[in-house]
Amino acid sequence: MLRIGMLTSGGDCQALNATMRGVVRGIKTLIGDEFEIYGFIDGYKGLVYGNYRKMKYNDFAGIFNKGGTILGTSRMPFKEIDIPTADGVDKVKAMNENYKKLKLDALVVLGGNGSQKTANRLSEEGLNVIGLPKTIDNDIYGTDVTFGFQSAIDVATRCIDNIYTTAESHSRIFVIEIMGHKVGWIALHAGIAGGADAILLPEIPYDIKKVYKAIEKTQKEGKKAIIIAVAEGAIPKEVAKLPKKERKAVLANSTYPSVSYELADKIRAKFDSDVRVAVPGHTQRGGSPDAYDKVLSSRFGAKAAELIRDKDFGKLVVMKNNLVDAIPLAESAGKLKVIDPDDQLVKSAKDLGICFGD
Amino acid sequence: MLRIGMLTSGGDCQALNATMRGVVRGIKTLIGDEFEIYGFIDGYKGLVYGNYRKMKYNDFAGIFNKGGTILGTSRMPFKEIDIPTADGVDKVKAMNENYKKLKLDALVVLGGNGSQKTANRLSEEGLNVIGLPKTIDNDIYGTDVTFGFQSAIDVATRCIDNIYTTAESHSRIFVIEIMGHKVGWIALHAGIAGGADAILLPEIPYDIKKVYKAIEKTQKEGKKAIIIAVAEGAIPKEVAKLPKKERKAVLANSTYPSVSYELADKIRAKFDSDVRVAVPGHTQRGGSPDAYDKVLSSRFGAKAAELIRDKDFGKLVVMKNNLVDAIPLAESAGKLKVIDPDDQLVKSAKDLGICFGD
Amino acid sequence: MLRIGMLTSGGDCQALNATMRGVVRGIKTLIGDEFEIYGFIDGYKGLVYGNYRKMKYNDFAGIFNKGGTILGTSRMPFKEIDIPTADGVDKVKAMNENYKKLKLDALVVLGGNGSQKTANRLSEEGLNVIGLPKTIDNDIYGTDVTFGFQSAIDVATRCIDNIYTTAESHSRIFVIEIMGHKVGWIALHAGIAGGADAILLPEIPYDIKKVYKAIEKTQKEGKKAIIIAVAEGAIPKEVAKLPKKERKAVLANSTYPSVSYELADKIRAKFDSDVRVAVPGHTQRGGSPDAYDKVLSSRFGAKAAELIRDKDFGKLVVMKNNLVDAIPLAESAGKLKVIDPDDQLVKSAKDLGICFGD
Amino acid sequence: MLRIGMLTSGGDCQALNATMRGVVRGIKTLIGDEFEIYGFIDGYKGLVYGNYRKMKYNDFAGIFNKGGTILGTSRMPFKEIDIPTADGVDKVKAMNENYKKLKLDALVVLGGNGSQKTANRLSEEGLNVIGLPKTIDNDIYGTDVTFGFQSAIDVATRCIDNIYTTAESHSRIFVIEIMGHKVGWIALHAGIAGGADAILLPEIPYDIKKVYKAIEKTQKEGKKAIIIAVAEGAIPKEVAKLPKKERKAVLANSTYPSVSYELADKIRAKFDSDVRVAVPGHTQRGGSPDAYDKVLSSRFGAKAAELIRDKDFGKLVVMKNNLVDAIPLAESAGKLKVIDPDDQLVKSAKDLGICFGD
Repeated sequence: MLRIGMLTSGGDCQALNATMRGVVRGIKTLIGDEFEIYGFIDGYKGLVYGNYRKMKYNDFAGIFNKGGTILGTSRMPFKEIDIPTADGVDKVKAMNENYKKLKLDALVVLGGNGSQKTANRLSEEGLNVIGLPKTIDNDIYGTDVTFGFQSAIDVATRCIDNIYTTAESHSRIFVIEIMGHKVGWIALHAGIAGGADAILLPEIPYDIKKVYKAIEKTQKEGKKAIIIAVAEGAIPKEVAKLPKKERKAVLANSTYPSVSYELADKIRAKFDSDVRVAVPGHTQRGGSPDAYDKVLSSRFGAKAAELIRDKDFGKLVVMKNNLVDAIPLAESAGKLKVIDPDDQLVKSAKDLGICFGD
Repeated sequence: MLRIGMLTSGGDCQALNATMRGVVRGIKTLIGDEFEIYGFIDGYKGLVYGNYRKMKYNDFAGIFNKGGTILGTSRMPFKEIDIPTADGVDKVKAMNENYKKLKLDALVVLGGNGSQKTANRLSEEGLNVIGLPKTIDNDIYGTDVTFGFQSAIDVATRCIDNIYTTAESHSRIFVIEIMGHKVGWIALHAGIAGGADAILLPEIPYDIKKVYKAIEKTQKEGKKAIIIAVAEGAIPKEVAKLPKKERKAVLANSTYPSVSYELADKIRAKFDSDVRVAVPGHTQRGGSPDAYDKVLSSRFGAKAAELIRDKDFGKLVVMKNNLVDAIPLAESAGKLKVIDPDDQLVKSAKDLGICFGD
Repeated sequence: MLRIGMLTSGGDCQALNATMRGVVRGIKTLIGDEFEIYGFIDGYKGLVYGNYRKMKYNDFAGIFNKGGTILGTSRMPFKEIDIPTADGVDKVKAMNENYKKLKLDALVVLGGNGSQKTANRLSEEGLNVIGLPKTIDNDIYGTDVTFGFQSAIDVATRCIDNIYTTAESHSRIFVIEIMGHKVGWIALHAGIAGGADAILLPEIPYDIKKVYKAIEKTQKEGKKAIIIAVAEGAIPKEVAKLPKKERKAVLANSTYPSVSYELADKIRAKFDSDVRVAVPGHTQRGGSPDAYDKVLSSRFGAKAAELIRDKDFGKLVVMKNNLVDAIPLAESAGKLKVIDPDDQLVKSAKDLGICFGD
Repeated sequence: MLRIGMLTSGGDCQALNATMRGVVRGIKTLIGDEFEIYGFIDGYKGLVYGNYRKMKYNDFAGIFNKGGTILGTSRMPFKEIDIPTADGVDKVKAMNENYKKLKLDALVVLGGNGSQKTANRLSEEGLNVIGLPKTIDNDIYGTDVTFGFQSAIDVATRCIDNIYTTAESHSRIFVIEIMGHKVGWIALHAGIAGGADAILLPEIPYDIKKVYKAIEKTQKEGKKAIIIAVAEGAIPKEVAKLPKKERKAVLANSTYPSVSYELADKIRAKFDSDVRVAVPGHTQRGGSPDAYDKVLSSRFGAKAAELIRDKDFGKLVVMKNNLVDAIPLAESAGKLKVIDPDDQLVKSAKDLGICFGD
């Protein structure tokens, strides 16, 4: 009897369940019916405290289209991994012991950057770990794409699409805040797909004057709807230039709930115009996965099963040039896949007349 | 040659274009090909300043699914109707003159409460006016339903649906702010459709302690996602009790951008929990109309054409017990259709265990 | 301990689960926690054979957005109710006995016309039955609307919307077959919402020459996409006129898989044009319920709970003029709600220029 | 003044307008405002007969989300390119002359395989041609992906998703026919995304006995919904083995309207079961493009503009390993990108337990 631990960690996304379904279907096909899944509750927390559900193949039926995760999740970041829990539990030790107590053959971790760093750590501790690249943010190093990303783009784009018609009817400027604190992948894609006039990203600090100019130019062309897609972590040039500590202080001292409100205030003042803000927020990570993500996560799940069958552990499943592959967890851990300002997609967007404020 | 003025006024919604398409198709069928539409730009503003586009039947083709309004819109509220514009134009006089200068046979006004009040005023001035009940808010007196309302419910419900899966995965409390400053119809419907645990409405001042109790009860039952759907104009009992002036002062002095943030802060403090806020905002009034609204606005448009044919002016097109009808504009003007706390739908929602804080 | 039997019967639809959720939430709120649901498997078949699942409140969690029915369904029509099953079981007697053996306090039947007729029969036999009006067809007598109907319209309309753009690009005539053998409610609504040029219904036998004329007229106006929405049971005038027996023979002898193919052939021959057919079929009854249906079925469910609490049995829950109510099952049983050719909605559609072939 | 001819040819798809918008935005940004677009009506037919609309930048506004093509399209396949039209026009000569008469600087062709073959021919004739890879079928050689493909997958997947819930409720086998006569890309992706139990493709002739076995196995596992996704061009092994002429004869002599009906009949007979068929048909190529396609077609459009600026003609814009590039039209013309039975995606699908009948 094969005993597989499984957990979902970090912020949830649309295709977590779809990926788990893929893993168990893959195991069934490639290895056979003799397996049990130990589903840890609420991510690593469940592994630390030995909180799990013993699950069978059929427990993963009917979840393909269900957003979120049937296992629950929590954020228990890597940076505190060596600090004991509030009730004094040594996390790494506890996870190691629970893994052994349950006689697991492998541990499958669906998670983002932080979670994969922890996965790598557990791998170094000798556990048989396989990582699956989950995140709407698409910032996992080593894979072209993560599951959840395209579905998040869909939601963000529909949001811009909806706002577009009201912006057009009222000849209004709208600032739409798209998820992405450290990286701007969703804002970049949804901004292009939604027909934004400007896209502001954490990776490309913006000069507000360039944004003003873009607005003026667009209004002169007779376009009524002006759409600014701004990633949560977009940053003005003058702030980006500051030393890290000062920069943090500036951001922390802001009286605005988020970047979009501050930006809207500036544009409102400059253009004496009825600028509105939309913050779709967590809607971007919820709901059903789209077809793209359902295919992707099915492929990822099948690959994880293959790695388990081949006892090829310590690996992160990735997509590289349209082919599913696996790389050592260590190769990805601790790195972030950010947007290169010279990325072809950024260049294409500029060729379409979209302003990035640089 | 029949000469029909047409304008869309106030906040936009999803089925404005669909309704205008209905009007012109109705005119073509019921009266014939000999007609011209004078589409006033940006609502009453266009009528005041004589800013219009001369349009034909085919100009209204291909817009059935297009959100917003191809005529543009603006808010020029009734309460300032007798105050001249900034550049000294007497609004009523100007509208009257432009109507006559263009030799219009009728003026079709797609608008909400304020806009229909103005329509009624113009009718009293002797213009041949027909009103069509537009608003996502569903607060027009005299009609069971307005066009735009169901489509707004759809968007708000999808928003709650999306957030539901993330709330469930993280065992989180979410406060979702639904459009509706004066009335809570969208929040009531979307709250029920989205599976909210509490719905807070302008019409039913809430006791925060009752909301706490509802959350506690729901958590005890093992439900992981807690959803509070709150209309923009939801109001705590203690504030609602204040005299109007003081109440306004309290609301004006709030440091929160909107009700949901304040509510979330209170719940966060009470439950020591990671409460999140979502503000779908203007996404609720944008995008394509749904099938329900496309049927409704087609029917409304056909009725408007019938009234024009019959020279039956000064009327507002309405839906009453599933039948389209028309009532005098004066009968509706100045009244608001608010939710009766004893409304059957509120009662049903309570029977389903939903808390209204009362 | 309250013991409630529940079953879903006949063709499935989108809001069956949502309605069952409403029933159990209503019971919990109005009566209390002390109840058990006996969910009969695959409709009346489960009641006949004593095949059921004992369920609790939480078994109905997480199903609000899930299409179909977690209980399964089957068609065991009323007309054979007094004929024993293939294995010799007396259906009515068996249902009666199983009801008593399980000591049920009530039986909740979610079903369409045939199923409610059976429900009425069981009520006459002395069982405490409550009916809930399920069907995408909207043909249950006594209620303005059934749950499933609006969601089916949504799917059918999206189908027409999609085909519209391809019809327009290729200047093609499309025949789209919409569900509805005996009644044309979905075709009527979706046809209007999709911008059809002609709508053919079982209730209004059509003259093919009038359809040709409508196509010619529309083409002359320069409209490129021609859309014919045809209900499954649409019937040519000359066939409708035949005595019932001959009519059935004509229909049975058709070499076409369904009406749309035959109609397309005729139009193709007449116009020497590349006429295409689309048959969305069962997609119209599947998938998630829309917001409208989720509100409706929640209200219906709450009403059923109220009737159980009040021991007010033998009733069908209905919607009348926007208010939920209940009527005796006997009042509805055996009657069909068909479209009156003089219905206001048909008239409105004609006022919009839509051809019905009459 | 730059003079650009543009046409859309072959079957329409969701992102044709989005791509044209991309081209003109790209030209405006990269080259400047001094350009005119000669939009040929209904594809090559417009070029042959000199039927065009002179268009400006703003004529391409507001079409980003609109399915189909504002230029119209038609099928005028390459294989007849050297046969004069019915009215005796030499096609190649006429296209050449019209291109010259209008003094075009370039011709942008949005089309599939046949259309790009014609584009290559015109390029060989000395015209400055740029091809953009349009097709829902994804069968254009030389590019990883075509625009329209992902949006078609979305529609097909939603169709399967909808049918899934009804199949589950009735414990039914469903055969769903997915577009794809020569290639099965949409069926492969939508089949995986929809959770199909078997996927039958033109590229992998199927053994009906293997399909039976897959159904039996799945039913034994207790799965209630059985979904067979079958591409229009799926072919039984015994027919595929026949010499081309005989094979064609067999297919032509079928009394079934399409493969799915024949397959359903066989399965119905074998399993004595209520097997149903769904044929979403042209709905798969209509409606709005999804976010993925809107990004893709924007990038493709920008690349076309770059090629025009650089006078780099005779090229087909392609996507290769996530980067937009251009290859000689001749490199792609006449070749079809079919599914390799050893493709990683097919292998992954098999690892998930999906039957291909081989």
